[in-house]
Amino acid sequence: MFKRLILFAGVVLIIAHAKSQTVTHLNLLPMPKNITLQSGSFQLSENFDVAIHSPVRDTILVKAVNRMYQTLNRRTGVYFKQARIRSGDNSETAALQVNVNKAATPAIGTDESYSLNISNSKVIVNAPTTIGALHAFETIVQLLTKNDTGGYYLPPVAIQDNPRFQWRGLMIDVSRHFIPVDVLKRNIEAMAAVKMNVLHLHLTDNEGFRVESKVFPQLHVKGSNGEYYTQAQIKELVAFAEEREIIIVPEFDMPGHTKSWFAGQPQLSSAVLPYEPGPPIDIRSLKDLNLNSIMRLMATAPFPAMDPSKETTYEFIDKFIAEMVTLFPSPFFHIGADENNGVVWKQNPSIVAFMEKNKIPDTHALQAYFVKRVGKIVSKHGKKMIGWEELFSNDISKDVVVQVWQNSTYTKKALDNGNPVIISKGFYLDLFMPAHVHYNNPDLPAQLPDSVAAQLRGGEAAQWTEAADKTNIETRIWPRAAAVAERLWSPASVSDVDDFYRRLFLISEQLDELGLQHVSGYERSLRRISNNDFITLKTLTDLLTPVKGYKKLFAQMTKPENFSYQTTPLIQVSDIVPVESKVQWEFRAAVKSYLASKDFASEKIINDYLTQWANNHEPIKPLIATSSQLKAVEKHSENLSVVAAIGIEALKKIKEGSSIDSTWLNEKLNILKTAGKPVAETELCIVREIEALVKQQLLPLPASYPSF
Amino acid sequence: MFKRLILFAGVVLIIAHAKSQTVTHLNLLPMPKNITLQSGSFQLSENFDVAIHSPVRDTILVKAVNRMYQTLNRRTGVYFKQARIRSGDNSETAALQVNVNKAATPAIGTDESYSLNISNSKVIVNAPTTIGALHAFETIVQLLTKNDTGGYYLPPVAIQDNPRFQWRGLMIDVSRHFIPVDVLKRNIEAMAAVKMNVLHLHLTDNEGFRVESKVFPQLHVKGSNGEYYTQAQIKELVAFAEEREIIIVPEFDMPGHTKSWFAGQPQLSSAVLPYEPGPPIDIRSLKDLNLNSIMRLMATAPFPAMDPSKETTYEFIDKFIAEMVTLFPSPFFHIGADENNGVVWKQNPSIVAFMEKNKIPDTHALQAYFVKRVGKIVSKHGKKMIGWEELFSNDISKDVVVQVWQNSTYTKKALDNGNPVIISKGFYLDLFMPAHVHYNNPDLPAQLPDSVAAQLRGGEAAQWTEAADKTNIETRIWPRAAAVAERLWSPASVSDVDDFYRRLFLISEQLDELGLQHVSGYERSLRRISNNDFITLKTLTDLLTPVKGYKKLFAQMTKPENFSYQTTPLIQVSDIVPVESKVQWEFRAAVKSYLASKDFASEKIINDYLTQWANNHEPIKPLIATSSQLKAVEKHSENLSVVAAIGIEALKKIKEGSSIDSTWLNEKLNILKTAGKPVAETELCIVREIEALVKQQLLPLPASYPSF
Repeated sequence: MFKRLILFAGVVLIIAHAKSQTVTHLNLLPMPKNITLQSGSFQLSENFDVAIHSPVRDTILVKAVNRMYQTLNRRTGVYFKQARIRSGDNSETAALQVNVNKAATPAIGTDESYSLNISNSKVIVNAPTTIGALHAFETIVQLLTKNDTGGYYLPPVAIQDNPRFQWRGLMIDVSRHFIPVDVLKRNIEAMAAVKMNVLHLHLTDNEGFRVESKVFPQLHVKGSNGEYYTQAQIKELVAFAEEREIIIVPEFDMPGHTKSWFAGQPQLSSAVLPYEPGPPIDIRSLKDLNLNSIMRLMATAPFPAMDPSKETTYEFIDKFIAEMVTLFPSPFFHIGADENNGVVWKQNPSIVAFMEKNKIPDTHALQAYFVKRVGKIVSKHGKKMIGWEELFSNDISKDVVVQVWQNSTYTKKALDNGNPVIISKGFYLDLFMPAHVHYNNPDLPAQLPDSVAAQLRGGEAAQWTEAADKTNIETRIWPRAAAVAERLWSPASVSDVDDFYRRLFLISEQLDELGLQHVSGYERSLRRISNNDFITLKTLTDLLTPVKGYKKLFAQMTKPENFSYQTTPLIQVSDIVPVESKVQWEFRAAVKSYLASKDFASEKIINDYLTQWANNHEPIKPLIATSSQLKAVEKHSENLSVVAAIGIEALKKIKEGSSIDSTWLNEKLNILKTAGKPVAETELCIVREIEALVKQQLLPLPASYPSF
Repeated sequence: MFKRLILFAGVVLIIAHAKSQTVTHLNLLPMPKNITLQSGSFQLSENFDVAIHSPVRDTILVKAVNRMYQTLNRRTGVYFKQARIRSGDNSETAALQVNVNKAATPAIGTDESYSLNISNSKVIVNAPTTIGALHAFETIVQLLTKNDTGGYYLPPVAIQDNPRFQWRGLMIDVSRHFIPVDVLKRNIEAMAAVKMNVLHLHLTDNEGFRVESKVFPQLHVKGSNGEYYTQAQIKELVAFAEEREIIIVPEFDMPGHTKSWFAGQPQLSSAVLPYEPGPPIDIRSLKDLNLNSIMRLMATAPFPAMDPSKETTYEFIDKFIAEMVTLFPSPFFHIGADENNGVVWKQNPSIVAFMEKNKIPDTHALQAYFVKRVGKIVSKHGKKMIGWEELFSNDISKDVVVQVWQNSTYTKKALDNGNPVIISKGFYLDLFMPAHVHYNNPDLPAQLPDSVAAQLRGGEAAQWTEAADKTNIETRIWPRAAAVAERLWSPASVSDVDDFYRRLFLISEQLDELGLQHVSGYERSLRRISNNDFITLKTLTDLLTPVKGYKKLFAQMTKPENFSYQTTPLIQVSDIVPVESKVQWEFRAAVKSYLASKDFASEKIINDYLTQWANNHEPIKPLIATSSQLKAVEKHSENLSVVAAIGIEALKKIKEGSSIDSTWLNEKLNILKTAGKPVAETELCIVREIEALVKQQLLPLPASYPSF
């Protein structure tokens, strides 16, 4: 009953879609450009058969049709008479007709549009290219709906869809913590489900060089802890992504972020030191960790960097890129080029002499020189160069793509200069921000002059891995990356946060069903931490979210005895809880509804939750006593009981219609303020909603939170 | 409190170890040969450091030490000061001293022994070879214990250990359903945890040819649905297994079970037919599915088989094996050779003529001829041949290994003939038998004459995949395979079923922690089937086990509209529930204890469970109404309420000391008998224990169950 009420509350949040002008509660994410609801419904039965009409034998298409068919098969449990779909299956009478004009492999800028028409008797997909058809299949899978008696149908819709931006990416840092191939494959499947099309792999950094090089084997042998992708694995991964129309863009970060390279290739370095992979500096030297001290460090520390003054550096890069382009068919090649402060260059007399000789006025100009030299090498090998914003200079070639991550003035500068731009600022998933912050990212320009609009190619969610590893990265990336996916695919007018969250948690369930480990990983950690009896514990941890911004990372980096990302066990509560709390959103929706309409259904949801929370600390105590990780968050458990009791009081006051006594109000708000503070890098995430009950007013969520 | 009582009940079941003559409740599986308990305990702190002493740089050893170290690190959450262990770390003062005499790669018959000595201040591992050291590390990980305040220690023990048998295998059929590399890797990790050392891959069968052949690419291209291992993946898998001292033995089943080969190589076939991968015959033609009809079919159906009369067949096999031995370094090469009834041979006039010409009296002799020819090819390529029992004939070479799977007379015949034997009969995990059936497998000879004892090399658990796929195979294999692991490692005297189950469920939790999906997969399926609200549902499904034997497979194979293993959606309740119910064992242990001693703790466990079960049907009804899979088992949910109510009545009678009224008894036993019957290929697994309460007597479990 409890669950049913929650579902009901969800259905209330139907949305008015701006373009289609029809009211709908379809569970699509990202929302298509145009939807028209029709009458009737398409029932899935054993007779659900599929035909493919395409001018050539299109392996990607046939495999994708079969994947969709098997997904529908597995979800419905219906034994479809047609077991497998082959390219020769092209009957005109099949229930699902797939019509594709042109075979396409993954590319940026190819027509990705599709139309999908579902009537009582037929499902028709039309797409100019294979890519559009694959998007249509994901839409069909999302539309599949269970009826009240366990049967399945597709609601009758006419959809015309194509993306707002052509570059919808996810960047994963596989250097700080190595992320195995199977985890990347699951991410690729999740990306495809929400119509993302670029997986950008940050393959090298100070902490690890993660690709096998046969030309320079010391790179991966000495530059990693033994964890790297073999060339065979890269090929396998590229093929896996290609079957889902996803490009893999490799990043080899240079000239900075290169400590791991120097372990095996010390001659590349600007400073002659024995290097081994690891963090570039010891952040424990900082007195106080704050924005200022970090910025000062970024400006003054001698971060390892390649020597741009030697011809041998470019000869090496040429040979290295020549090898790597054989592995990555992507037309784009990412050279990083970020966060190089030039300090080691200034410390090296021969580099200083080189600058003087060549009239290079400062290290900024030297970086620009390096980037241009490397750009020529990248072009020679048939690729388009891409780099983080620091690679930009006004005299850079117009076809270089600029990825903005920190300073949005680069967006304007690069667009004005004629360069293509992709936005990652505001899309950093490793900052532990709620999805709505990324969803309404102010750093993605909403309106651009016509003259430059086409240069804004899209954006990329970014997951750096100082505080994430193979065991928790799926819980870190998903489902939040879907916020970025919708922002980059759907029209800008699709922006209702409540409806987005409703759909986000439904898509999250579908990703779980696909095999993604974002839910399983969390629950596995709860089992471990709770001696396999996690129901009571989960009531607490479902309400804890990691503290927002870099605070958690700093706490981890400054452990006195251990300064190494790779060996820090990421098993604290802040490491295992999801960033987005579904319970919080259900509770918030109920509070919102109740404050507006005093409806019984919402009151019951609120009351049931509060009662459960108020009584959760006592039974959980024995568990907490036996776990150092749980002891660290015990204060939250105590606070939960306290704030839930306040919520119950407040709810009673609202019901009784009593006026708010200011002494009572201030006392409770003070307690709530304390309970809202971080403990062990986690926050109790429903304090704001209980505050709303106390004040009898729900404030909108902050649009942003500080990172430091 | 509830949980604590259960734990207490577990601790009661301490065992008296036959060899060590000390009473212990250590959580080891498999049990070591000799354990001596000492006093004190070794506390894990940040100072826990490790030294390696070995005569040569031993990569396998160093990697294994680091894996163990990281496992301890992740489990304890302690920040160890030593971040990584390198081969040069060999301080004499380190807390853990690893002493290895000789580096060893995986092999059968290498000395696998180790000793482990844990005192207050030191942990010392001594092993003649790398293999023994790796076993010691698994023992250390299993010994790690949490104290009451969240700290961790190793109990002080002296262990001397080596395996009873040298071949402790797991066979996985990757043909009927393709099993991806990441699933196999997780199985390899689980095998290593319980000291198994042979992964036998059944790579080809009628339904699919699963290895890339560069010499004969039509084999995998036409012989599979596109799912096969590339040669690069095989190499990766072999290397992954090697790092865990596990051999991968490839099986290419011939001359029968070869339909998938003939899709691309039709000239190999005894019958000229257009073949494509798939089941060899249509079992729906059988009037009744029972042992007789199946046996008749096995004897009379024209199963596809290679043509043994053509020289070109052997020329092909020679070239094929020449290619495959480059992928699999294992000294053993498995040729299957099972279930070839000779029918297609008799139907082919040229084969009949060949037999007449060569005085081959019958198709048994022709099979022996084929096996001998192939045996010569296998020897030529430097490998030892292994096959299922049907490959045996009295004049076979003495170094051919015979794998007994169906008829234990082959065990005697092969031993008498001087051949090495491994046992799979009684170890078939796909029969859905409880672990204790495999644990006390009567087909593993307990005593053998000294003259042949050494020929019994060990055994293999076997998981065929007609009714298992990548989504549920881990739940099918684990934790039950650990029963086979202990049987083959520990002394025969280790045979207490209750204590085995206690340890089995603890090991299961550790495998979950490793990332194995046997628990996650089950819970993911529950989430899907229950709209993500599975607590009530799980109360039911935790008590449902798949019907034992081949009944489930037959039900699946005879679906009227769909006869294909590979496209049958394995999403019924019988597909998703574990074979072994932990709740049943906890309940059974409480019933056993209560009937013996009327203790309050057990009474409370029994009463709490029965009350929960008696009240579970009503709340679950709405969920059942919306799911066809749940509707199919609704009867079990109703029955659970009924039998739990009977249990409550019975418990009351015991407490009151009332005598058993025979009318009441018979009435209740009748109801229980009905409730014990299978519904939708599942069984309600606590009926026997409730019967025990009614009768006030717990009968031992049957040692075996019928397969048909």
